Amino acid sequence: MAFTFQINNDVQFQHNQALLDKSASYRPILKETKVKAASIVALERDTQYLEGWGVKQIAPIERLSSYELKRDDQIIIDFGDHQVGQFSININAVGSPMDAPLCFKIKFAEMPAELARKSEDYDGWLSKSWIQEETVHLDVLPTTLTLPRRYSFRYAEITVVDTSPKWRAVFSNPVVTATSAVDTATVHQPELADVQLQRIYEVGLKTLADCMQDVFEDGPKRDRRLWIGDLRLQALANYATFKDTDLVKRCLYLFGAMPTTAGRIPANVFTKPTAVPDDTFLFDYSLFFISILADYEAFSSDKTVLNDLYRVAKKQMDLALEQVTSEGKLKLTEENPVFIDWSNDFDKETAGQAIIIYTLKQFITLAELVNDTSLETYTAILRKLNQYAKTQLFDSQSGLFVSGDQREVNVASQVWMTLAHVLDPEQTTVLMQTTVTKLFPITGIATPYMYHHITEALFEAGLKQEAVQLMKDYWGKMVTLGADTYWEAFDPNQPDYSPYGSPILNSYCHAWSCTPVYLINKYLV
Amino acid sequence: MAFTFQINNDVQFQHNQALLDKSASYRPILKETKVKAASIVALERDTQYLEGWGVKQIAPIERLSSYELKRDDQIIIDFGDHQVGQFSININAVGSPMDAPLCFKIKFAEMPAELARKSEDYDGWLSKSWIQEETVHLDVLPTTLTLPRRYSFRYAEITVVDTSPKWRAVFSNPVVTATSAVDTATVHQPELADVQLQRIYEVGLKTLADCMQDVFEDGPKRDRRLWIGDLRLQALANYATFKDTDLVKRCLYLFGAMPTTAGRIPANVFTKPTAVPDDTFLFDYSLFFISILADYEAFSSDKTVLNDLYRVAKKQMDLALEQVTSEGKLKLTEENPVFIDWSNDFDKETAGQAIIIYTLKQFITLAELVNDTSLETYTAILRKLNQYAKTQLFDSQSGLFVSGDQREVNVASQVWMTLAHVLDPEQTTVLMQTTVTKLFPITGIATPYMYHHITEALFEAGLKQEAVQLMKDYWGKMVTLGADTYWEAFDPNQPDYSPYGSPILNSYCHAWSCTPVYLINKYLV
Repeated sequence: MAFTFQINNDVQFQHNQALLDKSASYRPILKETKVKAASIVALERDTQYLEGWGVKQIAPIERLSSYELKRDDQIIIDFGDHQVGQFSININAVGSPMDAPLCFKIKFAEMPAELARKSEDYDGWLSKSWIQEETVHLDVLPTTLTLPRRYSFRYAEITVVDTSPKWRAVFSNPVVTATSAVDTATVHQPELADVQLQRIYEVGLKTLADCMQDVFEDGPKRDRRLWIGDLRLQALANYATFKDTDLVKRCLYLFGAMPTTAGRIPANVFTKPTAVPDDTFLFDYSLFFISILADYEAFSSDKTVLNDLYRVAKKQMDLALEQVTSEGKLKLTEENPVFIDWSNDFDKETAGQAIIIYTLKQFITLAELVNDTSLETYTAILRKLNQYAKTQLFDSQSGLFVSGDQREVNVASQVWMTLAHVLDPEQTTVLMQTTVTKLFPITGIATPYMYHHITEALFEAGLKQEAVQLMKDYWGKMVTLGADTYWEAFDPNQPDYSPYGSPILNSYCHAWSCTPVYLINKYLV
Repeated sequence: MAFTFQINNDVQFQHNQALLDKSASYRPILKETKVKAASIVALERDTQYLEGWGVKQIAPIERLSSYELKRDDQIIIDFGDHQVGQFSININAVGSPMDAPLCFKIKFAEMPAELARKSEDYDGWLSKSWIQEETVHLDVLPTTLTLPRRYSFRYAEITVVDTSPKWRAVFSNPVVTATSAVDTATVHQPELADVQLQRIYEVGLKTLADCMQDVFEDGPKRDRRLWIGDLRLQALANYATFKDTDLVKRCLYLFGAMPTTAGRIPANVFTKPTAVPDDTFLFDYSLFFISILADYEAFSSDKTVLNDLYRVAKKQMDLALEQVTSEGKLKLTEENPVFIDWSNDFDKETAGQAIIIYTLKQFITLAELVNDTSLETYTAILRKLNQYAKTQLFDSQSGLFVSGDQREVNVASQVWMTLAHVLDPEQTTVLMQTTVTKLFPITGIATPYMYHHITEALFEAGLKQEAVQLMKDYWGKMVTLGADTYWEAFDPNQPDYSPYGSPILNSYCHAWSCTPVYLINKYLV
């Protein structure tokens, strides 16, 4: 999640130290695993892979120290799988004494396509500082170089800027100290008869594990922070796999501690050097705080967390309901836009209406748990919202929901109305059947976030076969294109699409894409 | 000193641990001085300065934190004088929360001309790794950044590669922790009536101090190591100023500990990570080990050092004498070339003959001090060398020495024959007068090293006025062009000449250029 841009410098935030202290108490001790590199590879044109670039092995990693590198020489080290962590390597000089510093560039890449692009050619709006490339000067060799930053990568490309005409540089023992809050090696994984689904599951699990760090990060390469939209899906995937409730609590408390003075939860928070809320606000993201709390309570019935955060959750609903008319219609505003998906080329009103229904239902379960005396108020509003959706937004002629003044028909509306269970089960099945018939194949959707909701809607509507097929067509396609982890953005109709203009800026391990582990666990195991 | 290139990987070296231990015992504790930046400047076209580039102040340094920098913004910090040391600066983010790393480049320059050139345009043979430019990524702000390497500079140019559209970077409190083995503030300086000479002296003193580090370095920006040719002149300048005999001893022992198994002293040694001799050999540089020892003994009459190193010195003379014929003629070889000066466009035979006479005379003073029983052998050879020079190399018709088969007349021959005092004092005066008349103005000489020997020869010949004038025309010209310290290379006929094709690679603080402090002290105070 990154493709949104707001500046609200004048917003004031609360700072609830008691909740921040609770958040800090659930901070994970990261597990460290030393991972040795697998092989030396070269870039290779191969139309099968993303942007037409794959790699071929040219030597086992043991031969690395036989390469003596001088000005402009280059070598690509392949770690064999996606890694998040700190990189170290031994470096020595051979030949005459080292009469100049060693200078080299090192570029870390999740996908071969990133190596095929030059960093200096990128000129998009997203910060160039995300490009995982360092220039290193070393005055004295031999040394063991441990780069201070964390990188997210499978490939490390070393390009020697210069040695001197009298000596060459030799590299050996590249190691990544991989970090994660969880341990993939010991987690229980289902055994699936379908090998493609099995692989889809494995890649999802790796994606989730690599995004579980000091918080649930959206992407370990780029953004590296806690977004509500990613957290909601990560937490669901986590309950299906690692069951790390501490990390969920850490994140819930972080958001709960720092709403605005008006009570609204921001779309994301930063945690370094200290906890700081971002000045970005999204209507649906604020509401999803309720979902995350409700999903957590459904998984672990935790009275303490519920008592600590119920009021914060309630505030999100109350703020959202200020945008609901007396007839039960959600009115969107520009200051507090609804996200739904990255694309702004579709009308979001009906999907937004569905999300307030979806989260209001979850809020009511929480209100019941705490015996909120104002429960009836909310159930009354829910009836209105439902009623408005069914009578004003559902077009019985086409069998589909419409959205906005132009009565636009789009996938998002059907999907969220399905997930909100606005219609009865039989009607919902028909709704998604009609969606498949009239609106598939899907076009104009480029995020696993939206594909997740479509897939889940198919499952919820009982269209299991269609759901599995979509999972294979979408996440399975990423695997075919070379994914070791799932991507932030992917449009199967244009696989090379980047929202940032270059794959160098793409995040190829992104939290909101990990959900096959959740979907498979919930609907197929 | 750097402009020489040899590879002799098969040479074996001695490793005298006792002498290395003595060298280590004289290792200096470097003095550290915190120096604050002086101002914020901008590059400015000004034909008065080197390559036509000067700077103008645009704000006092106190205003630095009012500059909020984003993608491609640039600022130049001026420390007001040449500095050698570690750089640190405070950095913060202003605006929305820091949603991307900060990436910036920082380029350190001794002269404005370096800032006017792009690093990526340099493609010469000298290692690009010497370019003092770093690219820094910082994931978390605020921070105090202390760069781990040492730089040699007056200017620090910061170019922000990127922040993000949501925040800007603010820099404050740039500081250099300047290091030197000596303290310029407390050294006694002569008061000269001539203000130009006074300034020439001051710049020389700063040059020497900035090159006195863990050893006598040739240049703190580039090369950063101990060369015989630089050491000889630095030691002389040091006796006239700081009188730091420990650092001289440290360097003498370093060379004395690591000759080849055949006994030859290399042209330079490395000291990090451990003491390692270079595989470069120069006929005159090996002989100058004798000079350095003799100059040191003349300054401090140190029996211990003399006893420890006399045999090493004697070996240099014995090896050199193997190249002398029975008539007393020096025969040069390709394996062990004579340096004299960078240029290879003049014949070096006669200058080489003079240097063996010069150093043999110094060797004889050492031999007398240790009561060497073979003294007479050396005085006999000295007579032969002298005799050959006077009868075969001096052309009485022109009144000048000739060199090589083509009987070439060049400045270096006259200068070194003068310094070696091959002729009697009156003849020497006439020789240098003839040199001035027939060979001045000087052309084709681009090093302060050779200009030093010409100036000293004028003084030695009693031509004080001409010597002072040359000092003003040469070192004074560097001051006019903007020198805070003296340069490795400078040809006043083509001030922008770089032996490396770009000022970015030039060393603008170079040891062999510091000698005005020695010349002024010896001949003018």
